Amino acid sequence: MSAVSDAVRVARATLLRVSEASTPLVRHVRAHGVEATLADIRAGAPIPDVDVAALQLRLADADGERDLSLAATVGARLVCPGDDEWPSLLDDLVRVDADSFGLWVRGPLRLDEACGRAVAIVGTRTPTAYGEHVAGELAAGLADRLWTVVSGLAYGIDGVAHRAALAAGGMTVGVLACGIDVVYPTGHRQLVDRLAAEGLVVSEHPPGAAPQRHRFLVRNRIIAALSLGTVMVEAARRSGARSTLNHSRDLLRHTMVVPGPVTSALSAGCHTALREIPGCVLVTRTEEVIEQVGHMGELADPLSGPVRARDRLGPLVRRVFDAVPVHRAAPAQRIALTACVGAEAVEPSLAALQALGLVERTTEGWRMSRAGRDERRADARPDRALPLDWL
Amino acid sequence: MSAVSDAVRVARATLLRVSEASTPLVRHVRAHGVEATLADIRAGAPIPDVDVAALQLRLADADGERDLSLAATVGARLVCPGDDEWPSLLDDLVRVDADSFGLWVRGPLRLDEACGRAVAIVGTRTPTAYGEHVAGELAAGLADRLWTVVSGLAYGIDGVAHRAALAAGGMTVGVLACGIDVVYPTGHRQLVDRLAAEGLVVSEHPPGAAPQRHRFLVRNRIIAALSLGTVMVEAARRSGARSTLNHSRDLLRHTMVVPGPVTSALSAGCHTALREIPGCVLVTRTEEVIEQVGHMGELADPLSGPVRARDRLGPLVRRVFDAVPVHRAAPAQRIALTACVGAEAVEPSLAALQALGLVERTTEGWRMSRAGRDERRADARPDRALPLDWL
Repeated sequence: MSAVSDAVRVARATLLRVSEASTPLVRHVRAHGVEATLADIRAGAPIPDVDVAALQLRLADADGERDLSLAATVGARLVCPGDDEWPSLLDDLVRVDADSFGLWVRGPLRLDEACGRAVAIVGTRTPTAYGEHVAGELAAGLADRLWTVVSGLAYGIDGVAHRAALAAGGMTVGVLACGIDVVYPTGHRQLVDRLAAEGLVVSEHPPGAAPQRHRFLVRNRIIAALSLGTVMVEAARRSGARSTLNHSRDLLRHTMVVPGPVTSALSAGCHTALREIPGCVLVTRTEEVIEQVGHMGELADPLSGPVRARDRLGPLVRRVFDAVPVHRAAPAQRIALTACVGAEAVEPSLAALQALGLVERTTEGWRMSRAGRDERRADARPDRALPLDWL
Repeated sequence: MSAVSDAVRVARATLLRVSEASTPLVRHVRAHGVEATLADIRAGAPIPDVDVAALQLRLADADGERDLSLAATVGARLVCPGDDEWPSLLDDLVRVDADSFGLWVRGPLRLDEACGRAVAIVGTRTPTAYGEHVAGELAAGLADRLWTVVSGLAYGIDGVAHRAALAAGGMTVGVLACGIDVVYPTGHRQLVDRLAAEGLVVSEHPPGAAPQRHRFLVRNRIIAALSLGTVMVEAARRSGARSTLNHSRDLLRHTMVVPGPVTSALSAGCHTALREIPGCVLVTRTEEVIEQVGHMGELADPLSGPVRARDRLGPLVRRVFDAVPVHRAAPAQRIALTACVGAEAVEPSLAALQALGLVERTTEGWRMSRAGRDERRADARPDRALPLDWL
C-alpha cells in the first residue's frame, strides 16, 4: 500500500508534463503541494520567478491520467515521493533546489532497493578501446560485488557499463533523457528492452518526450542522485559526463575519475576534473571505487609487487645483503665497510642471511648463494626502478 | 672568494667519505662543526646514536686532500655550505635531518644559478613509448621556458629528460648515486660527458664510490632538494622514483604526477602516488607544471574545446535555438512550447538568432539557417557528449 493517493499521483503526472526541473517552481511545490500548485498555475496566480503564462499554455495540453495510461502501455509506473519504492536518495535533490516531482519507472526491480548500493558510470559516447575495457571491468566488478550500475543508456561508456552489469548478472538502472516510452538512441532498443526486463529504466520526462538537449543536463542530476558516487571513464574536455560529476559533487556524493594517457583527447576531460574538483578521487579498479562508496571495512587491498625474501629483511640486514659480492667471496670486515655498518653488526646479519639461504660461507669469506642471486636478479626486473646490477 | 677555508673544504671531503647521510651524525656536525666531528670520531668519543667504531674504521682510510685531487682529475670541485655557489635550497635538508655535507660538482654552470628555477623529472628505467614521449615533451617545454631539468642520469625517464633538455638548449643537472668520477650506468658515458660539458653533474659520494643500492635512495633526496618540485612520469608500483617524490613532499616541494592508462603496470606507481600523497597534483603538460612551481602570473591557460557561436548565446536563447527545427519551419508558438519558454520570450530570442544568422524566417515560421545547421552538426562531433541529432 502506498501513502500516495490516486489524485496526487495524477497531479504529479500532470506536473511532470507541465514543468521540467524549473528551480523556482520546486520551491512553490515544496511549500504548497502539487495539487495547489496546479490550481495556482491554472488560475494564473503569480508564482515568484516563474513564467506562469508559459506553464498555463502547457497545462492546457496536459493530462496526468492520459500520461499514466500511456506509460502503462509500455509497463511503466509513476513512482512518487511517499511511495515505498521512492528512494530517499532522491530527496537530496531538495538541497540543490532541483527536486524531482516523480519518476516514470519500467522494470521488475524496486527502485529504492536497486539504488541502495549504486554507483554511476558515465563517460563519452565515443570511447576508445581502452575506455570500453575499463568501463566494462568496473561495471562487471561492481555487479559481482552486488552493486547496482546506474548510467544514461547512451552509446559508448553508458552502453558498455549497462551491458557489462547485465552480463555479470547484476542490477543496472538506465536513466533516460526522453519519455519512458521513447527509445533513444534508437540503436539501443534491445538494450532498453533488456533493462526493462531485468533491471530498471527510469525517466522524469512525460511519455512521448523527445530527447531534447536541455533534458540531458536535467537527466544527469537524476543519475547522480540515484547513486552514492559517480565514476567518469573517458570524457573529452567538453562532455556531458562532467555535468553528472558536478551534480555528484553538489549532492555531496563521491566523485571518482579514471585517468588515461595525457596524449588522449578522450582522457582530457577526466584529467581536468581531477585537477579541478576538490575531493575528486582517482580510481583504477573496482576495489578502489568500493573503498569510496562502501561501508567501513570495504577497503581495497593495497596492491604491491610480489613479496620476496628481501622484503622480509630488516634495514640493517638488507644493507648487509646488498653488500655481499655475487661471485667472489669477501671477508666480513670488507662487507661491513662496503655496507657502512659496524663490525659487530655484520656477523649476526650474515648468519641470518645464511639461515635464509641467501648467502653462503666459503674459505675466502661470504658470497651470494644461488637463491641470493635469484633474489638480486628479481630486483633488476623491469618493474623495479632501483638498479642492483652494479656489482 | 669563498668563505670556506681550505682546511674546512678538506675536512668536508673527508667527512663525505666517512659518513653517508647518517641521520644522528648530521646533528653532531650541526652542533659542533665538521672539524670537531672528525676529531671526535678519530678519538673514539661517543656520539649519540652513532656507531663511532665503524666510522673510525672508515676514517682511517679517508683522505680529503686525496679525494679533492681525484675529483680534480675529472674537473670536479667540492661545493660546500658557505660557498657562493651553494644553493640555499639544500639547506632545507636540515628540516628533515638529512643535511648534505657538500656536493662534488662537475660542469660549467654555477650550481645555485642552475637550481634557481629547477624541476625534477623522474620515473622508471624501462618506460613505454608513451612515458618517453611525455617525459621528453615536459623536459623540452621546461627548458624552452628557461627552467632547469634535474634528474638521476639513469636509463629510461631520467635519460630522456636530460637529453630533451639538452636538445632544447636548456640547463640540466644530473645527480649521481656513485662517485663523481664513476660512470653509471656505463651506457650513459656520452650523456654524462655532455652534462659535464654543458650542464652539471653532481654527487654526494666520494670519488670512486660504486652505485650501491642505498646510495640511490640517499641520492634521491638531493634530486628533490635541488628542485622546486618533482614530476613523476611512469613508475611501477615499486619504484625508486616514488622515494624522490616522497622526499619532495617531506621538503615541502611540489609533488606532481603524470597519469597514464590504468591498464599499464608502468603507470600504477603514478596512480598510487596520486591517491596516497596529499597535495600531489596531476599534471598533463608543461604549463601545468609551471603553474605549480612558477611564480604568480605563470598560470596555465585553460584548455577548452573550440569556442563556437552557440557558446556565446545566453541560456534562454540557447534553449530556443535548440528547439528550432532543422528543415521544416515551425511557428514561434510551437517553438515556445517545445523549448518550454514563455511566448513573450520566444520572439526576441528568434530575432537575436536571426541577427546571428543561425535561424531564418519562412512563410511557415522559423527554421535553421545553413550556419545554424553547421553549428548543430558541430555539437554532434565525437568530442561532444551531448547528442543533438534527435530532431
